[in-house]
Amino acid sequence: MANNERVDWQFSGSDEGKAASEASLSTYTSKLFALCDPQGKAILPPRGETAETSHTAERAVVKAVLFGTGNAYAPSIGLPAAKRAVADYLNRDLPQKLSPDDVFMTVGCKQAIELAVDTLAKPNANILLPKPGYPSNLIRSIFKHLEVRNYEFLREKNYEIDLDSVRAAADENTFAIFIINPHNPNGNTYSEAHLKQLAVLARELGIMVVSDEVFRWSVFGSNPFVPMGKFSSIVPVVTLGSISKGWSVPGWRTGWIALHDLDGVFKSKNVLAAIKQFLDLNSKPPSVIQAAIPTILEKTGKEFFHRRQMFLKDKTTEFAYYKLKSIPSLTCYMKPEACTFFWTELNLSSFVDIEDDEDFCEKLATEENLVLLPGIAFTLKNWVRHSIDMDTPTLEDAFDRLKSFCDRHSISGETPFKIVNGVNEAPFKDVNGVN
Amino acid sequence: MANNERVDWQFSGSDEGKAASEASLSTYTSKLFALCDPQGKAILPPRGETAETSHTAERAVVKAVLFGTGNAYAPSIGLPAAKRAVADYLNRDLPQKLSPDDVFMTVGCKQAIELAVDTLAKPNANILLPKPGYPSNLIRSIFKHLEVRNYEFLREKNYEIDLDSVRAAADENTFAIFIINPHNPNGNTYSEAHLKQLAVLARELGIMVVSDEVFRWSVFGSNPFVPMGKFSSIVPVVTLGSISKGWSVPGWRTGWIALHDLDGVFKSKNVLAAIKQFLDLNSKPPSVIQAAIPTILEKTGKEFFHRRQMFLKDKTTEFAYYKLKSIPSLTCYMKPEACTFFWTELNLSSFVDIEDDEDFCEKLATEENLVLLPGIAFTLKNWVRHSIDMDTPTLEDAFDRLKSFCDRHSISGETPFKIVNGVNEAPFKDVNGVN
Repeated sequence: MANNERVDWQFSGSDEGKAASEASLSTYTSKLFALCDPQGKAILPPRGETAETSHTAERAVVKAVLFGTGNAYAPSIGLPAAKRAVADYLNRDLPQKLSPDDVFMTVGCKQAIELAVDTLAKPNANILLPKPGYPSNLIRSIFKHLEVRNYEFLREKNYEIDLDSVRAAADENTFAIFIINPHNPNGNTYSEAHLKQLAVLARELGIMVVSDEVFRWSVFGSNPFVPMGKFSSIVPVVTLGSISKGWSVPGWRTGWIALHDLDGVFKSKNVLAAIKQFLDLNSKPPSVIQAAIPTILEKTGKEFFHRRQMFLKDKTTEFAYYKLKSIPSLTCYMKPEACTFFWTELNLSSFVDIEDDEDFCEKLATEENLVLLPGIAFTLKNWVRHSIDMDTPTLEDAFDRLKSFCDRHSISGETPFKIVNGVNEAPFKDVNGVN
Repeated sequence: MANNERVDWQFSGSDEGKAASEASLSTYTSKLFALCDPQGKAILPPRGETAETSHTAERAVVKAVLFGTGNAYAPSIGLPAAKRAVADYLNRDLPQKLSPDDVFMTVGCKQAIELAVDTLAKPNANILLPKPGYPSNLIRSIFKHLEVRNYEFLREKNYEIDLDSVRAAADENTFAIFIINPHNPNGNTYSEAHLKQLAVLARELGIMVVSDEVFRWSVFGSNPFVPMGKFSSIVPVVTLGSISKGWSVPGWRTGWIALHDLDGVFKSKNVLAAIKQFLDLNSKPPSVIQAAIPTILEKTGKEFFHRRQMFLKDKTTEFAYYKLKSIPSLTCYMKPEACTFFWTELNLSSFVDIEDDEDFCEKLATEENLVLLPGIAFTLKNWVRHSIDMDTPTLEDAFDRLKSFCDRHSISGETPFKIVNGVNEAPFKDVNGVN
């Protein structure tokens, strides 16, 4: 059919997304999983698996499907019932109440982050991001040409935000500070007093606080979760959330952004309008899940979250912490009290042939079919993030492979049970009965 | 808690999305529905309703929910099983077969359009869009600063593409021609011979063809649907699709983009890489629907689509066409043979006090609680798009209100049954027994 003369096709693909895509978590993750040998031992962590979600959530979505209540387009700002349910849910912990009009539904928390960044992207503006931190906001900033500045953490104070570093990074073009609470990958939760200090500082700097609270249901340490919205009488706050982590359903792609306004500044400063405009132009979360959100938020029992928190505490965190003690080339400065990860520093000098965190992760994937993410994916070089959301036998397998790999690449065989991760040195009572 | 001194908040919202948002369908739609009186008669068309979907589709999603097969993150390019199912489905009609690697899952067809535009957005590049046409691609172009040029249609040839207008609009910076087939709002389907002519012309111009085929299941005229991919031995083709219209589930937000490559040009010209990069950076369709896609595409019986097509033909199109004959101020040049709309021209000179299409739609919404979309929303002034996807009594109500409105605003009372829409003048046999 076609004639065979050579055609000089005029089109070509844009490279606008290239740099940002290369910095994305999924690029790192895909590259490492591709190094694993599908014919070899089981690849860990298992991809495409999540913890079981709540039966209440399942039933709510099934009902929406069978009744067709989420088959139509939803308004671009979100389904009214879902917006109301999110406002009601967040209001449980807030002195200044949100109205449904303050809430917008998004495609997971990821789009909520993107929306916050896009809404603020203006010539000369800069935003303050955590280092380390989840990279979506950074990536989006690269993509949107928004200047990013970093603030840091106080390791000796259980990873509190280093407020001096915030003050040092801010200037008259700073628009916002983004915080992650509970923090991924640090694994801690901020105290009420600390959040209040942050609110006062942000007010002094004239900037809003954007708080990613997607892991609020995965808190199992002694510090309770406190929402940043509690301080919206001091500073304008934007809360980002989703059902992805709390209900173990990231594949349902439904989250939200909530504006805790202060004296109508979000309205007068055009933030509200910009959010609506961007939502008009971008992808929408599935109506079929939005229709289920009221039941999911109102009816999921406390015991569902409690069971999950106990699993994360007793079966994974304690166990992983115990196993980590026998790996001297990795240092964990704080036993996590939230989220589903360990965040450890590589003691590079103890290795014979590991150049940096990326080299470590690539060799580990190649040799052990085990994927850890390099710290650089979270903007901090020579650290690694371990996913620990696995059942105990699988987690044991993962840590045994890790230890074997580290021993093999270390300068000399270290005493296997040398205590290097010092915070909690009490003997671990193994869930399998081994001490 | 807060001290009361005035704070000079440093942030403000971006206005980057403003112009594009104002041109979006949802902005027009929301504005018109807001003019309706919620205390008055029923607002038409009913918002948030869709036709019943197939039980096969419902069961497939319920199964995915209950088995948890779509609870985890999917890869950014899409769930492998969904990509394979889309390739297999499209291959039924294609001589050059797609592989699953040629297919990417998107958030409805809308994100597929956005992706096609974003991937091509480069300095100086321009794309050819239909006038009239669905506005998403136009809007995205505004947003991405991509130059848009329009091509037109031959009214006297059942809205075939005016190939001369394509040739006139193209130059050495043209990257692609976007077509909509079946066409919304024109309501026609392109013949095999016409698509082949277009393919040959696009090859001569050195541009790709991007074909939005989201309405391929809503064809009920004598012309069968022919996919553009059939001509991918002549020209590189990108097919956009989704289950939104065919299965009446736009709220499930799941679509695809398929690349029918020719001699590897999508790869060598960086289009493939750009698509992957943009997918990495943007929202993902729900895994829980992606997991159901194989069953939805493979198992939905022909009778489901047939029933829907017969409804659209006999209960809505024929009936609406009959009702339209009594409204001389609106001209429909072609009885639709696809999609769920009527597309009519306003005979402005016949009105006393209607300025243009926007004025017409605003007054109609205000006076009759009936929403039609102004042609300008589809880039063609002084036309209107009628949604006709309603049961017959509701449709009758809608057209009676429309007639009453037009009569009231017309220069003189016209003969109620004057035949102005000429193609089919055979007496309509009313489904309710009225001739």
